[in-house]
Amino acid sequence: MLFGLLACVATAGRSQNTTIAERLGYPADAKLLIIHADDLGLAHSQNMASISGLETSPVNSASIMVPCPWFPEIAAYARNNNSADLGLHLTLTSEWKHYKWGPVSSRDSVQSLVNENGYFYSAVDSLGMYGSAKEVEFELRSQVKKAYQFGIDVTHLDAHMGAAVSTPDYTAAYMKVAKEFDLPVLMDSRINNLDHPGVKSLLADGPVIVDQIHTALPPDFEKGMAQYYTAVFRGLNPGLNCLLIHLAYDDEEMKAVTIDHPAWGAAWRQADYDFFTSPECAEILAEENIVLLTWRELRDKITRAK
Amino acid sequence: MLFGLLACVATAGRSQNTTIAERLGYPADAKLLIIHADDLGLAHSQNMASISGLETSPVNSASIMVPCPWFPEIAAYARNNNSADLGLHLTLTSEWKHYKWGPVSSRDSVQSLVNENGYFYSAVDSLGMYGSAKEVEFELRSQVKKAYQFGIDVTHLDAHMGAAVSTPDYTAAYMKVAKEFDLPVLMDSRINNLDHPGVKSLLADGPVIVDQIHTALPPDFEKGMAQYYTAVFRGLNPGLNCLLIHLAYDDEEMKAVTIDHPAWGAAWRQADYDFFTSPECAEILAEENIVLLTWRELRDKITRAK
Repeated sequence: MLFGLLACVATAGRSQNTTIAERLGYPADAKLLIIHADDLGLAHSQNMASISGLETSPVNSASIMVPCPWFPEIAAYARNNNSADLGLHLTLTSEWKHYKWGPVSSRDSVQSLVNENGYFYSAVDSLGMYGSAKEVEFELRSQVKKAYQFGIDVTHLDAHMGAAVSTPDYTAAYMKVAKEFDLPVLMDSRINNLDHPGVKSLLADGPVIVDQIHTALPPDFEKGMAQYYTAVFRGLNPGLNCLLIHLAYDDEEMKAVTIDHPAWGAAWRQADYDFFTSPECAEILAEENIVLLTWRELRDKITRAK
Repeated sequence: MLFGLLACVATAGRSQNTTIAERLGYPADAKLLIIHADDLGLAHSQNMASISGLETSPVNSASIMVPCPWFPEIAAYARNNNSADLGLHLTLTSEWKHYKWGPVSSRDSVQSLVNENGYFYSAVDSLGMYGSAKEVEFELRSQVKKAYQFGIDVTHLDAHMGAAVSTPDYTAAYMKVAKEFDLPVLMDSRINNLDHPGVKSLLADGPVIVDQIHTALPPDFEKGMAQYYTAVFRGLNPGLNCLLIHLAYDDEEMKAVTIDHPAWGAAWRQADYDFFTSPECAEILAEENIVLLTWRELRDKITRAK
């Protein structure tokens, strides 16, 4: 019954001048939040902690790295849990020291995206030096196709380390691939400043644009994750917000994956897990009247409701 | 001094009718044994347990799976430990349920070796149905080249799951690649029965041939690994023996890698680790006058001493 009502309101308010909140039937000043776990498929530890977060905490959305070794494990979970809000964390880098992956496409077709060892570059800047936008587009499309081939009901796309939005040409490719599969993509209002014909023409469609993306940075981790996330929740502005987090256990596997890199390391991911599965997290969200929203709703009520 | 003596004896006894033991300067009835850990690079757990085995137990040789996700970790170890006896566990299958890898070569150049998901086949029989020997040879060569590119002083080649020796054509490719890099390959006397011109011509070189390969099978695991390995040591025949083992910890990562497959599973690998690092293992080897030999010795004193 509620669903029907919201659908009607959404249909009535389809104008591009109406906010996402209003298009979904919420008051204009509603504080909407997607709590989004990144990097699924990266490691077994990441998969297990993220699944636990999705099933037992306010974490309500996540995205999967298709080129990574543990992709088949999370794909099996996605097939068996059709309603989970799982998108793709489109990946163009392989940033860890001793644990590597490369493209989903055959390497000969995306040679500008790989280093001499056949892996993706470690750094976004290296990709930007050599990666052709045409090959970026080809690889992003290959990742989406492979996810569908594995039976995942993809709810959205986003960009691991921002690599797929690190140049205007890549961003146009990212938006183009999303459009082909009728999927929302994570981007915020900075997209409106991009003077690129491919981007401009896709923006004319009125895609979902997030008002504010929040994510912890190294100084936040140093001060304590509970303090950072509490401040995000207490200070959340009305509109569509997306909070990017990373859930994994501080175990031997994850310590080895993230070796020599404390930022976004195993302890960082465990701290995220600990906060989001704590009773305090749910309590603060309730106190602040924060409405949790998924990419699935955005996909089905906005992107595909045309 | 001893080294000089052995080298002289080896030179003197180079005839193909002389045993490996005699060529190395041991009595003809010496019981030579390589204790060889397989599957390095497969997982972090496998790397850590194998390194521990190599450094603290009679395990004296191992081989690395170049296409696997944790290859860069064990390659870094190999670069920092030049005297370790590390060969390549040439890999043409990706047999686990939720954790996958594909070829080192660009996929377009070895299409007959991969399934629709871009990974190696799970089973040796699937490879045998579709895999062209020409592409097997290309991929084996790519794996050796990549190992050298990572700075590994490769001591020998062997075949993961026997895939690279599962047909006469593949076996000829395997021996040909070994010859190109002047490396010994693991094979036993069954090789002499292979009626294949490529194999016959390479056998004419008088390569190292192991007299007996030992490895635990599921009934051995069920009865207890200590019992099996003790029986192998007590009953070891004179000649060149190679014992293939698998060292890993029975931890969350390894349990997930080997899920739904108790044979060669995480508990199996922990049982191997426990036996080989026990005081009993070293004691029985000493009691039986077993001489531990490495592939490095075979490479440098026989294969390359021409």
